[in-house]
Amino acid sequence: MNFSSKLLEKAVDEVSQLPGIGKRTALRLVLHLLNRPKSQTIQLSDALTNLVEHINFCQNCHNISDSEICEICANPKRNSTIVCVVEDVRDVMAIENTAQFQGHYHVLGGKISPIEGIGPHNLNIESLVKKVKNEHLKELIFATSSTIEGDTTNFYIFKQLEGLDIAITTIARGISVGDELEYADEVTLGRSIINRIPFENSLKR
Amino acid sequence: MNFSSKLLEKAVDEVSQLPGIGKRTALRLVLHLLNRPKSQTIQLSDALTNLVEHINFCQNCHNISDSEICEICANPKRNSTIVCVVEDVRDVMAIENTAQFQGHYHVLGGKISPIEGIGPHNLNIESLVKKVKNEHLKELIFATSSTIEGDTTNFYIFKQLEGLDIAITTIARGISVGDELEYADEVTLGRSIINRIPFENSLKR
Repeated sequence: MNFSSKLLEKAVDEVSQLPGIGKRTALRLVLHLLNRPKSQTIQLSDALTNLVEHINFCQNCHNISDSEICEICANPKRNSTIVCVVEDVRDVMAIENTAQFQGHYHVLGGKISPIEGIGPHNLNIESLVKKVKNEHLKELIFATSSTIEGDTTNFYIFKQLEGLDIAITTIARGISVGDELEYADEVTLGRSIINRIPFENSLKR
Repeated sequence: MNFSSKLLEKAVDEVSQLPGIGKRTALRLVLHLLNRPKSQTIQLSDALTNLVEHINFCQNCHNISDSEICEICANPKRNSTIVCVVEDVRDVMAIENTAQFQGHYHVLGGKISPIEGIGPHNLNIESLVKKVKNEHLKELIFATSSTIEGDTTNFYIFKQLEGLDIAITTIARGISVGDELEYADEVTLGRSIINRIPFENSLKR
């Protein structure tokens, strides 16, 4: 691209480094910034700088937090003996939105993926094992993604905890609520048959 | 969404105000910022702030520029008597990329669109009319988009210049190079038949 301005070029270059944003989209976004009040863009820049300068990760669960311990871990009403293991912050938000879980979380920061060069030591697994050993947890719930990498991560953690007195569960895989059977893939449908539950239990919500 | 951090929420809010970016995409982008070195995000913020603080629009053609007169207008090798009228900066870049035009530009800053509340007075039309009257231009080339709004804008400018001694042309509309006839829409195909050119001319590139 032929930029008539170095400032424009620099801004487009920086924006196009974000994932999923190419040069053309970046140019469209940057030109939009020039069409709106200057103060709004300064607010945007400040918000991003503040974020990376001042963000904390909860010392207990590694969730993103403004303080040293996140709101969930600091909440005395929540059950600290049940810990839900998730990949990242978005998963915490998704589960919190269901309002069905009152325990704590443990954010791994990803999943084991040899292709992307992510091994167990790049994730927050050691602190999880330490937590299980020292804090008398009752239950660990795996809520990682339903992929080979997610399953591998679960299995690795499971192996690390072998012999410890803790219930290890995984969230149910099955047909989504509202889905029609004929469009479900066979693996999901197969799992949902194997892991069928008593009908009375399905009446509780 | 249930944010565990005010800083995160603020950043997502600001990013999701960009066109075409919803809350989920904004969250994905912002979490990406947290996964890469802090300095890169500070560079991004600085680039955006610098852009809106220091950007200029060329006093002659209204193109984005780092100086008071843009590089194109300041270039003595370019023909200042031929002016190409375009909607925005991206159009200048697109035409510059063809390397087929050696004249000047005039950036309108949009097109007349009553639906969006954009009238002639919101665009850089007055300065264009003044330029035609004072600077003995030879030719004005309309290169606005091929829509009702683009055509309306062209016609409005054409009317403003009635009686002045200047050639007014418009870029050719027709079948794209590489396109097959059967897939062309009938309006484009019809125009390209009406505006057919001597075959010898098509041999020049």
